[in-house]
Amino acid sequence: MLFRPHFKTHQSEVIANLFRIEGITCITVSSLRMAEEFALQGWLDITVAFPVNILEIDLINKLAQNTILTLVVESEEVVTFLNLHLKNKVFVMVKIDSGYHRTGIASSNNEAIITVIKAIESSSRLSFKGFLVHSGHSYKAQGKKELEMIHQDSLTQLQNLKSNYAAAFPNLLTSIGDTPTCSIMDSFEGVNEIRPGNFVYYDATQLFIGSCQLNQVAAFMACPVVAKHPDRNELVLYGGAVHFSKDSFQHPTFGTCYGLVVEFTSTGIESIPNCFIKTISQEHGLVSVTAEYLQTKNPGDIVYVIPAHSCLTANLMKNDTWFV
Amino acid sequence: MLFRPHFKTHQSEVIANLFRIEGITCITVSSLRMAEEFALQGWLDITVAFPVNILEIDLINKLAQNTILTLVVESEEVVTFLNLHLKNKVFVMVKIDSGYHRTGIASSNNEAIITVIKAIESSSRLSFKGFLVHSGHSYKAQGKKELEMIHQDSLTQLQNLKSNYAAAFPNLLTSIGDTPTCSIMDSFEGVNEIRPGNFVYYDATQLFIGSCQLNQVAAFMACPVVAKHPDRNELVLYGGAVHFSKDSFQHPTFGTCYGLVVEFTSTGIESIPNCFIKTISQEHGLVSVTAEYLQTKNPGDIVYVIPAHSCLTANLMKNDTWFV
Repeated sequence: MLFRPHFKTHQSEVIANLFRIEGITCITVSSLRMAEEFALQGWLDITVAFPVNILEIDLINKLAQNTILTLVVESEEVVTFLNLHLKNKVFVMVKIDSGYHRTGIASSNNEAIITVIKAIESSSRLSFKGFLVHSGHSYKAQGKKELEMIHQDSLTQLQNLKSNYAAAFPNLLTSIGDTPTCSIMDSFEGVNEIRPGNFVYYDATQLFIGSCQLNQVAAFMACPVVAKHPDRNELVLYGGAVHFSKDSFQHPTFGTCYGLVVEFTSTGIESIPNCFIKTISQEHGLVSVTAEYLQTKNPGDIVYVIPAHSCLTANLMKNDTWFV
Repeated sequence: MLFRPHFKTHQSEVIANLFRIEGITCITVSSLRMAEEFALQGWLDITVAFPVNILEIDLINKLAQNTILTLVVESEEVVTFLNLHLKNKVFVMVKIDSGYHRTGIASSNNEAIITVIKAIESSSRLSFKGFLVHSGHSYKAQGKKELEMIHQDSLTQLQNLKSNYAAAFPNLLTSIGDTPTCSIMDSFEGVNEIRPGNFVYYDATQLFIGSCQLNQVAAFMACPVVAKHPDRNELVLYGGAVHFSKDSFQHPTFGTCYGLVVEFTSTGIESIPNCFIKTISQEHGLVSVTAEYLQTKNPGDIVYVIPAHSCLTANLMKNDTWFV
């Protein structure tokens, strides 16, 4: 099985080089702009796991000159456009909707799938590579059991696609992408490629889903305390939507949660119970804390926060000191 | 009444110059970094409407050398720190919580207010300028009546503060900041300064609150269609959290809404009924549309969207083409 990590989470040359040292040569990105950046850094086998934006045809042509470029398509119109305007050969994967209902063709919709594959096959510039899914509904899963069901369902769909199309395309590749299932599932029967990205840092959402343990998290924001409100057990942090973005997850006790408070101790990372970011505005983060924790913090002290969504936080913080 | 527009919404030299042409010389920003940028562009009277982060004392000292700098404080500790470390004179306003419960001292808490003012007055480097509020709860107001109540409540609190402290500080200044009340209220009795920011572009949230009319909105994202799903009347746009950020408002019919779809016609901007961004991920925006609208759009076509929160969108898009 090929490991093609998604670099949208870090978008960082330093982290990318850590993968290179481990022998990784194939990567995933979520935009052509990112593909361009990583191509300049010497990454030559890049999948852009986002439906082709035909308005970027010039950039596609530029990238396809010097890289093994894989694009994702789901309609005949886009394939026809690519066939007319491509100057170099690219690989394409057909996006399959495995239940997330964001993009892709339903795996049961063979008519639509065959139409797209036929259009690809009729073009000398496009090469059909296989099927790509992103089971993003796993991010809403509560517990391992629900994750297992989502994963098994994706596998079954990919296995069915393989049975249907393997006779015509013996080298057909299937690719899955979500971090939760890639992190904790054991069986990947019928899957040829995984493309997780978030696992490189993990975050509060993944911790809550159960994709990782606390000591596997590598995304922390160091936020200065700017105000203290003992009457409502709240701290105000210099850490807002321009730093964290504004993603959240639903916590059974806390409600909407934008991040979890931790401390670094001599033995490692320690989670601070009942301390979390409850609201975020442009520059402010409002942290709900316990009375005990509040007593330990004053303006100018640092509160360490695991963001709800490290990909979006890293996207905003990429030009600043982000990892230590 | 002084108009001190908040430049955090646009963070743009071009837009800033439009204000300069109109005779504006005093501005508001939400971070010292922004203050530094605008100081370099020749803005010399800057209020940083965010509680002082004492870790940035070096930047404060640098800025205070060449600008009339106003900082916002709400605790004795921070004032004491500033007194010890400031190298130049700065003005300070005491942050009052008028009901938003994000930051500030409750207007009724005279003990805390007096403590802070005394600390300010005992320092030769700090000059007490007055009281600053941000009635951010107005962003959740539904209709003009609720806005009026919030506004009247803020005015009463500021008027009471004036009565209490005017004898000791005859030049006491009161300052309010939110765009909804600054946009549509008539009376500002007892208010010496307004600091709205969002009004420069407005956005879908403000349109929904009633702060503006559609033809006053100046924030539009041009998003290419990348996929089309007639079976569920949805379009997928290249326009996600890395472009819009991830703010939303609650619409009575749509539920969570990240942006509203509009068209540009020969007569102006036209809102497209029942077409809105329903979910956002890192690069994708999922638009719920009518069957009629869906028929008019294909991959590569542009959908124009008024973002839910233009400040956060502008913060992300500032290095790209953002205004036409």
